[in-house]
Amino acid sequence: MTVSTLETLETLSGGITTPQGFRAAGVRAGIKARGLDLALLVSDRPATAAAVFTTNRAQAAPVVVSRDHLQRSGGIGRAIVVNSGCANACTGDAGLQAAREMAAETARLVACPVEHVLVSSTGVIGVALDIDKIRRGLPAAMTALAGDQGALAALAIMTTDPFPKEAAARVSFGGRDVAIGGMAKGSGMIEPKMATMLGFVTTDAAVPPVLLDRALREAVNETFNAITVDGECSTNDCVMLLANGTSGVTIDDGSYETFAHALGTVCLRLALGIVRGGEGATKLVTVTVTGASSASEARQAAKAIANSPLVKTAIHGGDPNWGRLIAVAGRAGVEFELSRAAVTIGSIVLFKDGRPHDEGAPDAAAYLKNDEIAVLVDLGAGMASSTVWTCDLSAEYVRINAEYRT
Amino acid sequence: MTVSTLETLETLSGGITTPQGFRAAGVRAGIKARGLDLALLVSDRPATAAAVFTTNRAQAAPVVVSRDHLQRSGGIGRAIVVNSGCANACTGDAGLQAAREMAAETARLVACPVEHVLVSSTGVIGVALDIDKIRRGLPAAMTALAGDQGALAALAIMTTDPFPKEAAARVSFGGRDVAIGGMAKGSGMIEPKMATMLGFVTTDAAVPPVLLDRALREAVNETFNAITVDGECSTNDCVMLLANGTSGVTIDDGSYETFAHALGTVCLRLALGIVRGGEGATKLVTVTVTGASSASEARQAAKAIANSPLVKTAIHGGDPNWGRLIAVAGRAGVEFELSRAAVTIGSIVLFKDGRPHDEGAPDAAAYLKNDEIAVLVDLGAGMASSTVWTCDLSAEYVRINAEYRT
Repeated sequence: MTVSTLETLETLSGGITTPQGFRAAGVRAGIKARGLDLALLVSDRPATAAAVFTTNRAQAAPVVVSRDHLQRSGGIGRAIVVNSGCANACTGDAGLQAAREMAAETARLVACPVEHVLVSSTGVIGVALDIDKIRRGLPAAMTALAGDQGALAALAIMTTDPFPKEAAARVSFGGRDVAIGGMAKGSGMIEPKMATMLGFVTTDAAVPPVLLDRALREAVNETFNAITVDGECSTNDCVMLLANGTSGVTIDDGSYETFAHALGTVCLRLALGIVRGGEGATKLVTVTVTGASSASEARQAAKAIANSPLVKTAIHGGDPNWGRLIAVAGRAGVEFELSRAAVTIGSIVLFKDGRPHDEGAPDAAAYLKNDEIAVLVDLGAGMASSTVWTCDLSAEYVRINAEYRT
Repeated sequence: MTVSTLETLETLSGGITTPQGFRAAGVRAGIKARGLDLALLVSDRPATAAAVFTTNRAQAAPVVVSRDHLQRSGGIGRAIVVNSGCANACTGDAGLQAAREMAAETARLVACPVEHVLVSSTGVIGVALDIDKIRRGLPAAMTALAGDQGALAALAIMTTDPFPKEAAARVSFGGRDVAIGGMAKGSGMIEPKMATMLGFVTTDAAVPPVLLDRALREAVNETFNAITVDGECSTNDCVMLLANGTSGVTIDDGSYETFAHALGTVCLRLALGIVRGGEGATKLVTVTVTGASSASEARQAAKAIANSPLVKTAIHGGDPNWGRLIAVAGRAGVEFELSRAAVTIGSIVLFKDGRPHDEGAPDAAAYLKNDEIAVLVDLGAGMASSTVWTCDLSAEYVRINAEYRT
């Protein structure tokens, strides 16, 4: 993401129906015990489509089906259908059949080829998807489809999320506006690798499939793939992006950077929403690692810190325990020079050049009462850096996950 | 560890002073706010010594000093001195100097070369060690030294441990008995890599340094290195082993397997004690992975499962949520075939050949009320297996670590 184009970018409220030519709906199909649980997104015209999926080797049926459809369509999509309350993962051939029927029924109602429909599911793993409930819910979703219903779709994809995640932005190309909008869900089982729990992004730009795929992968790498709640990568992760060209603007190599920056901004807002709404989270924590010998080692160390239960509980307790940060950096499997390492919490240096600076501890403890915390660890080994985002670890996380299915 | 020698092995109560020719003491030096905090172990004669240390790149001063002494002595040890309440880690040159003085003062009192003294510290990282308190405490420890004081030494090395960890065993070689005894501490920051928080083992066998080192590394790999409480590897981990030959038995290639098995038994009892006393732990969980394509992939998958907060909270809550086990196996970075994978909790199959067997869920939920839980995941990819031990994740873990320094 470059920042040189910041002046042309306007962040907006709104979500997947903010770009022109998209309609959405969120309805109740009865999969969850209560609330909306079926979301439908339709582009008025065929859109180019890109998606990234979980790298978990246990891939849910909707992931298998959507990947297949994307390949068979050559990167074209008209509709995305999503249910919450059931992940349709580890459900064998019956689950695969249910995901295919979910796509087929949507294609019939939208009147498009089945491979132009992408499907997604989220919820409990290993429970059969009741396809009859989906089949009965879809006509209601079709009826409710509208250009102002993105917010209901964002509600319908939630599971343990404490609030819906939507983001949108507008960027101008030679006087013509392009909008990008998105929604996401996810609260636990969050350390996406190549994708996040569920994210859906739309744009009314026309973007050739190759550029669309590149833009999505770059944006996801710096946003959804840079967050973690609990180090767990799910069976159903995916981020899907549709570009329908309704704005009349076509993205090419010259306008790519501006478009990619806007896309990254929308994805980052969605990703940070997931972290803020992490299971049991009370604080958003930005972990930056500098002084690494390579970008991948910087990311690896930052992820190790962001997933450390001792770091996350110390931050939860407001304890500026820099020793735990050093201990994680030391075990992270990356180059690390204790004598040149440093730990900064907020702007308060607590450890530098191999020596404690505990005179800063009272200020750091006061700083840790904030809702948004920045932690910086210098590995003292090189020039590369990386930033990831996480939340604190609270007793509430344990309560949520000890009682999830009861 | 072979099992063919089981009949010659007798497990004993007792600890580091159970073998002949070792004396120990546990006294109060005033490092901790209350309780014993200085342990001393002395062999009546020079012993062969072996040790394994943390692989954390932030190595505490006592680790640096002990490694240096072991190298300079060529594997000979007379005394081990340990303080709790302060890790003497990330304390710069002053910390290194303090660790050296702790060894020098012990050597002066024991009247042995300084390189025959190993030092170890455990407690808060980044706090300077008050060497004056150690210097004042050591004479009291010397006075208290006795062949029946191992239990007090085991108390003196504790930090957040809810109980002391001791184990001993006796094994016979041609009518002559050899004893092995040990103590360990550790409760949080536990995923030892090449060593554990702190473990000290003695034997009255004579064991040549090369065999002693081999026996320790093998035992540690299958015991201390096969446990995890929270996936955190500390700056101070070490396991030290002294063999003083007082029994008159010398271990050679012919008796090695029997000795190694007995050593492994003692180390396993100590290691399981650490897990049972894991911070906030209410259950001991044995995680076995089978069907892996290699032993290292089996271990990697078992560790991923044992460190998964979603698995650990589900077990804490008594929820037979096999989907979380499959999701972790799928993200563990190992070969995995969903269609041939299986999950068994206790002896109850919940997932097999790609299909749920939820008819077993009520029995599995009842089984999960036990204090000791066995979880078995078959990756469906090969013939290798591995077992690791962990505990559940409770709200109490969060409370302990959010408030550790307050």
